[in-house]
Amino acid sequence: MPDGFVSRSLQRLRNAMSALGVPVDTSKQIRQQLEECARNVGGEVSTRLRAARLAETYLGLDDAARHEFLRIIALEFGPDPVAVATAHQSYQAAIGTDAQWDAEAQLRRAVRSDRLRILTQFNAIPQGVKFLVDLRADMLRYLKDDPQLAALDRELESRLSAWFDVGFLELQRITWNSPAALLEKLIEYEAVHEIRSWTDLKNRLDSDRRLYAFFHPRMPLEPLIFVEVALTDHLADNIQTLLDEHAPVFDAKRADTAIFYSISNTQTGLRGVSFGNFLLKRVVDDLKRDFPKLKTFATLSPIPGLVRWLRQHPEKLGELAGAPLTYSIDALASGDWQEHKEDLQTLHEALPRLAARYLMEARHNGKPYDPVARFHLGNGARIEKINWCADTSSKGLQQSFALMVNYLYDPDDIEENVEAFACDTRIAVSPVVRRLAKR
Amino acid sequence: MPDGFVSRSLQRLRNAMSALGVPVDTSKQIRQQLEECARNVGGEVSTRLRAARLAETYLGLDDAARHEFLRIIALEFGPDPVAVATAHQSYQAAIGTDAQWDAEAQLRRAVRSDRLRILTQFNAIPQGVKFLVDLRADMLRYLKDDPQLAALDRELESRLSAWFDVGFLELQRITWNSPAALLEKLIEYEAVHEIRSWTDLKNRLDSDRRLYAFFHPRMPLEPLIFVEVALTDHLADNIQTLLDEHAPVFDAKRADTAIFYSISNTQTGLRGVSFGNFLLKRVVDDLKRDFPKLKTFATLSPIPGLVRWLRQHPEKLGELAGAPLTYSIDALASGDWQEHKEDLQTLHEALPRLAARYLMEARHNGKPYDPVARFHLGNGARIEKINWCADTSSKGLQQSFALMVNYLYDPDDIEENVEAFACDTRIAVSPVVRRLAKR
Amino acid sequence: MPDGFVSRSLQRLRNAMSALGVPVDTSKQIRQQLEECARNVGGEVSTRLRAARLAETYLGLDDAARHEFLRIIALEFGPDPVAVATAHQSYQAAIGTDAQWDAEAQLRRAVRSDRLRILTQFNAIPQGVKFLVDLRADMLRYLKDDPQLAALDRELESRLSAWFDVGFLELQRITWNSPAALLEKLIEYEAVHEIRSWTDLKNRLDSDRRLYAFFHPRMPLEPLIFVEVALTDHLADNIQTLLDEHAPVFDAKRADTAIFYSISNTQTGLRGVSFGNFLLKRVVDDLKRDFPKLKTFATLSPIPGLVRWLRQHPEKLGELAGAPLTYSIDALASGDWQEHKEDLQTLHEALPRLAARYLMEARHNGKPYDPVARFHLGNGARIEKINWCADTSSKGLQQSFALMVNYLYDPDDIEENVEAFACDTRIAVSPVVRRLAKR
Amino acid sequence: MPDGFVSRSLQRLRNAMSALGVPVDTSKQIRQQLEECARNVGGEVSTRLRAARLAETYLGLDDAARHEFLRIIALEFGPDPVAVATAHQSYQAAIGTDAQWDAEAQLRRAVRSDRLRILTQFNAIPQGVKFLVDLRADMLRYLKDDPQLAALDRELESRLSAWFDVGFLELQRITWNSPAALLEKLIEYEAVHEIRSWTDLKNRLDSDRRLYAFFHPRMPLEPLIFVEVALTDHLADNIQTLLDEHAPVFDAKRADTAIFYSISNTQTGLRGVSFGNFLLKRVVDDLKRDFPKLKTFATLSPIPGLVRWLRQHPEKLGELAGAPLTYSIDALASGDWQEHKEDLQTLHEALPRLAARYLMEARHNGKPYDPVARFHLGNGARIEKINWCADTSSKGLQQSFALMVNYLYDPDDIEENVEAFACDTRIAVSPVVRRLAKR
Repeated sequence: MPDGFVSRSLQRLRNAMSALGVPVDTSKQIRQQLEECARNVGGEVSTRLRAARLAETYLGLDDAARHEFLRIIALEFGPDPVAVATAHQSYQAAIGTDAQWDAEAQLRRAVRSDRLRILTQFNAIPQGVKFLVDLRADMLRYLKDDPQLAALDRELESRLSAWFDVGFLELQRITWNSPAALLEKLIEYEAVHEIRSWTDLKNRLDSDRRLYAFFHPRMPLEPLIFVEVALTDHLADNIQTLLDEHAPVFDAKRADTAIFYSISNTQTGLRGVSFGNFLLKRVVDDLKRDFPKLKTFATLSPIPGLVRWLRQHPEKLGELAGAPLTYSIDALASGDWQEHKEDLQTLHEALPRLAARYLMEARHNGKPYDPVARFHLGNGARIEKINWCADTSSKGLQQSFALMVNYLYDPDDIEENVEAFACDTRIAVSPVVRRLAKR
Repeated sequence: MPDGFVSRSLQRLRNAMSALGVPVDTSKQIRQQLEECARNVGGEVSTRLRAARLAETYLGLDDAARHEFLRIIALEFGPDPVAVATAHQSYQAAIGTDAQWDAEAQLRRAVRSDRLRILTQFNAIPQGVKFLVDLRADMLRYLKDDPQLAALDRELESRLSAWFDVGFLELQRITWNSPAALLEKLIEYEAVHEIRSWTDLKNRLDSDRRLYAFFHPRMPLEPLIFVEVALTDHLADNIQTLLDEHAPVFDAKRADTAIFYSISNTQTGLRGVSFGNFLLKRVVDDLKRDFPKLKTFATLSPIPGLVRWLRQHPEKLGELAGAPLTYSIDALASGDWQEHKEDLQTLHEALPRLAARYLMEARHNGKPYDPVARFHLGNGARIEKINWCADTSSKGLQQSFALMVNYLYDPDDIEENVEAFACDTRIAVSPVVRRLAKR
Repeated sequence: MPDGFVSRSLQRLRNAMSALGVPVDTSKQIRQQLEECARNVGGEVSTRLRAARLAETYLGLDDAARHEFLRIIALEFGPDPVAVATAHQSYQAAIGTDAQWDAEAQLRRAVRSDRLRILTQFNAIPQGVKFLVDLRADMLRYLKDDPQLAALDRELESRLSAWFDVGFLELQRITWNSPAALLEKLIEYEAVHEIRSWTDLKNRLDSDRRLYAFFHPRMPLEPLIFVEVALTDHLADNIQTLLDEHAPVFDAKRADTAIFYSISNTQTGLRGVSFGNFLLKRVVDDLKRDFPKLKTFATLSPIPGLVRWLRQHPEKLGELAGAPLTYSIDALASGDWQEHKEDLQTLHEALPRLAARYLMEARHNGKPYDPVARFHLGNGARIEKINWCADTSSKGLQQSFALMVNYLYDPDDIEENVEAFACDTRIAVSPVVRRLAKR
Repeated sequence: MPDGFVSRSLQRLRNAMSALGVPVDTSKQIRQQLEECARNVGGEVSTRLRAARLAETYLGLDDAARHEFLRIIALEFGPDPVAVATAHQSYQAAIGTDAQWDAEAQLRRAVRSDRLRILTQFNAIPQGVKFLVDLRADMLRYLKDDPQLAALDRELESRLSAWFDVGFLELQRITWNSPAALLEKLIEYEAVHEIRSWTDLKNRLDSDRRLYAFFHPRMPLEPLIFVEVALTDHLADNIQTLLDEHAPVFDAKRADTAIFYSISNTQTGLRGVSFGNFLLKRVVDDLKRDFPKLKTFATLSPIPGLVRWLRQHPEKLGELAGAPLTYSIDALASGDWQEHKEDLQTLHEALPRLAARYLMEARHNGKPYDPVARFHLGNGARIEKINWCADTSSKGLQQSFALMVNYLYDPDDIEENVEAFACDTRIAVSPVVRRLAKR
């Protein structure tokens, strides 16, 4: 174990804690407690208690001290390279014999570190699962500038993946009868179209709306991901209309179309643990049971990467639009053009084409550049329709010149689309959008 | 990968399935499906569906076919030794550099096998967790004669340990108002003192009794472990009295003693995943809140290993009893001596001493030979009292000459006892029993 | 107030209580407490407390003392005839003027007695509603020989009718997942076909069965009335077959027929408060929702009055059977004829005809003599089919020579049948049974 | 039955309905339906259905038509005076004989009208209880100018009293985890200190607050009455401080005082049905269980009648204040004096004395004039302390010159206070306030 790492970390933690007024010896105690956790001294009950106290200590630390705390775990409680080497040798020697299988298990044990044992024990505090999810959110921030946390992060991600296996998640419909403490979280977490007030929220829970979330049994008032659905009779093409609190309520019994107009992941600390596609699948099942007339399942989605990508590739603006544009990116994003009636027709042709081509062509590491496109296309949807002036909010203009897109989930095509996308990143596109892109 | 293993297994699975009338090609299909599961072909949704179908196939197999099914997973989907070697080399080379942490994560990934991915996907069927617990119970049976399943078993145990972390378990008090479907399980699972009828069960749920169980959120009507408690005013010394349905009900508000008279683990498939000590800890907390006058927490426990051990060491009979006995082990286990009044006084001295010495001295691998003693002493209890003629049922006589023992959980001593037991297997014993053993 | 009544009752209550060892003054205290209850002395809170204490006193009394207790309430706390006369005079004088409505309310108040106020206050003890229902069950027993309780009984019945208005009742489906304490009540209350064991009960809750009950929100584990339903594909004609624990389970999804094979009222104290017809109506609605293929809703019912009525009218035996019978009523009820194969054909014709004619003709106060017939015909069912050797239990033979009957609830005819039965007690009969009766 | 009444009502209902575009014949149909309801034609199931339809008709009517609808019920379905006279005669004749008790029941039946039967049947619609409560709220409005509704109102009140017997009510603690739909009702119903926003509401549900409500099992999201409690360590003397959202949260575990600072009745239609005193009793019990250190239970209450009463008795202003005041009632109610520091000392003496004397002396029909004083004194509280500048909101100034009062509930004195108040309206007053009033 490279001792330099640790002692420096320890020193910094000591400094950080003493700056917080924590007695100088505490960091030494922390290290000692971590060791006791790792060694499992005493009964499991007391080990858990100790871990719980340590977790509470963590919550009292500031950001710098938390970083050092995690570094101590990461650097000091990893596997022992010598033991790993030994186990590896025995394993390779045993291949093909009956001893192979025990040797394999031994190697796996040698590779397993005490880090995870320590973290898992934190689970003993009330709301322990949420604690670990939030701890990982901290870690992901530190990780950007501190690659030495990588192994610890990977171990925690792997454990969280086990705990948040979709088999454990509960789909719940959220209504105006749900606890206020839960609804308040929706207001806080909504990441796509801000919920402006309790009235706005109530409107999104009206009889022509549905809101579903996934929950973990040990985080009962914490939605992990939620989706907002509008029941309607057409492919919704404008988000302001959809969110208008004064719009008449649609008779849900007549609905043939379900529009997923907002999907929000809420827990940064669960990055890499995926359950979005299961959510949509189960929401579709639930909606079908309640509304047998539903035929069309589609989104009304933002195009969050469009402007960002154009700024990186400004030369593409005219090329993708199909014609030189008299507006700069900034001018388009400002929305002033909405006042220039004479330009509207041109833009009405150019901007949707621009978006269609962007969605079909812009890539990063071989996958669609646009994160929302990546999510829905990966889940088996197809690009169905580009909507002009669909989100004229400031955010909508800045992100995508007020354009939005419908992704269509056609149950008959989903599997094939998933396959085609997974194998050679083929993107499913409706004939209309294909034509638009070609023109 | 030792191909011989697999093809033989496959052949046997094929034979087993064809014996069941399953078309010959099915085993090939199973292998193919397992491969698809492992490779994660298609969307996660469809992968899960495929795994679910496979799990249902498993449920339809007979024992021999299940064994071969598991062998295929164990032998064919392990880690790739070559890839492991490469990753190991990189890891050792990177020690001490910044690349160490990524290399460690890479090595861990190489060691991880596809087996677990396959098994975890089975979780997608309804009651998937219970399915995997039962699958492990199958595996533990096959494992006795088939060491090649060891690595797979260890991996599944490790995953089950993650899922059944005590942080996820719910302590529930079970009463006569609990669902009949749940109570029925208690009747089925009770392992210490058989529940003979619904009336017997109702008596164990009366106002002077408590019954607690741990549940996992995804196995709602399946107790994992449960403990039966009698509230009383003395150290109960006879199980027949305790279970007498016609005995008057004790006024629980006056109780100062809680007797844990039966603890049953229910899920064979969770062997190695421990939560017994947490159960007792939390039950004690719950009882203290409801009955602040409670001072004594103790068990009335069987001594299941006594006669078994004596049969292995017949020479110890007289030695431990402190005097030569005129009865053979068989005679003592038959209980006929109960009719011979003239011998009772001698036996009343000799048998308790025998038991005391057995509990203190008989070891296996350095730990107490008696499994119940091992459990309670490991949890911090002490041997408090030996009870003569305490379980005169046929089972009680056969196991331990009708003797039973009280283990005492004294909150002030638990931690110290745990520590002493863990470090040098020192066994805590009350003065009374110590004197009894010495005489 | 006729003082003699009261003082005699009081004396008897005093005697009864002193016989129970209750101090002599208690009955005086009871009277005083009743008076305080009636006068509402002190705050409502303390009045309730006093009533609660009184209610608990009642529970400690034996039958004779309870009777006297109720007599005191009945006789001493009735309305004041003088006040009633005055209010009545004012009322009649005010008819046709604006003062009429107040006068009417005043008269109603004068007629209202303190008895109900006293009884209602008993409601304050935990399980107060159940207490009053049970108190009325006591009263109905005493009432048979004591007409002086009539007014009190009528007042209590009226209040219970208000409390048990069907608008307040909850329909619940009972399953094997219901609390054991509730299931135990079913075993206790089943009045038609005894539930012999928990296994028998479990069979009646299997996937091809349904069991529904009405509950009152303040008597949560007390079913008021329950109905047992078999889902099947034909008009069930034999109760032993239906209750056979070893019979294969029918695939409920294929069911087109729901057989109501047992309906039990559980609370004697609610006599006169009717909710049976609502139960069937709501059960039919619930079944239709779960099993859209259901077409036929019918009962398999006993004919509990048949033999009783024949014993009162022995001359009818041959007449209704359509031919002289070589068996006496006793011989038929003994079931010995089942062994005489040579008579079976004759009886197979005669007995069903006898039952058909009995159901159509035997009357009491103009209504069907048979209580089960009265219930179902009043609810709009028709006599559909007579079943020979349908209940060969001892009870079935003794009641109705092993005959049973299907009543059919045809949604299209129910209203018309109810009307016809209510107006001129016209009984709906299927063509088959009509023909049988004519032959 | 005075036919003129009815036909005129019918005509007006007809006009009202035709003005609403309802076909002319509907009112005739309504009358006919009411008659069918009253006569109970057909099965109970269809009667209920008919009543349900009628109830829905009612909901569609405007105020004038509803009034006429109720008049028809009130005037046309009352008891038959001739039948009443006959039953009364039989009753008086039977006094002292065994026939008395039946005769009494007969008279009671004759006096009972069909009105209640009709109204009760309305209970069959979903939310039927709430419907009847709201219908009574309508009726109470019409009743002010229409005494002919008196008898109907009294009958409905009596039935609602039976249904809302405190034995049926459920005390629930309401928290931030309660359904938003329920919390929204609190915002709507709060009658004392307006809830200004969801943040204000959340503050009132914080860990140093409690909010309790009574519910009826058939009106699940409708609080009947609710009380807001602050847990603190002193007799709170200022409502703005208490409701300050930015005030630090008090550590409830340290609380020795519970302040009831707002009590709101929510259902106008339940006027005359009392449960306020039970609410306080049960809230006190619940608080004591959760916070054993609580010693003082008191209110911080408005004095809503003070200024109103002074305006009726302007001559009392100086007299009660103990000295001539230089401010008029209007000037005091405007609150301008708060700026005149030189007058504050005088007012600080005069105004509390004025309030103390008002509370002790101002009467209406022998009872305290002030409605809040009447409520708490009737429940056994005493006037504990007058608080100066305790509610400086506009409403507080207009009602009571910003004065508020603490009523103290001392468990030891409650019963005696209730008794003294009930018998001769003696008002309990603390020594401090008594001295203040004397000075």
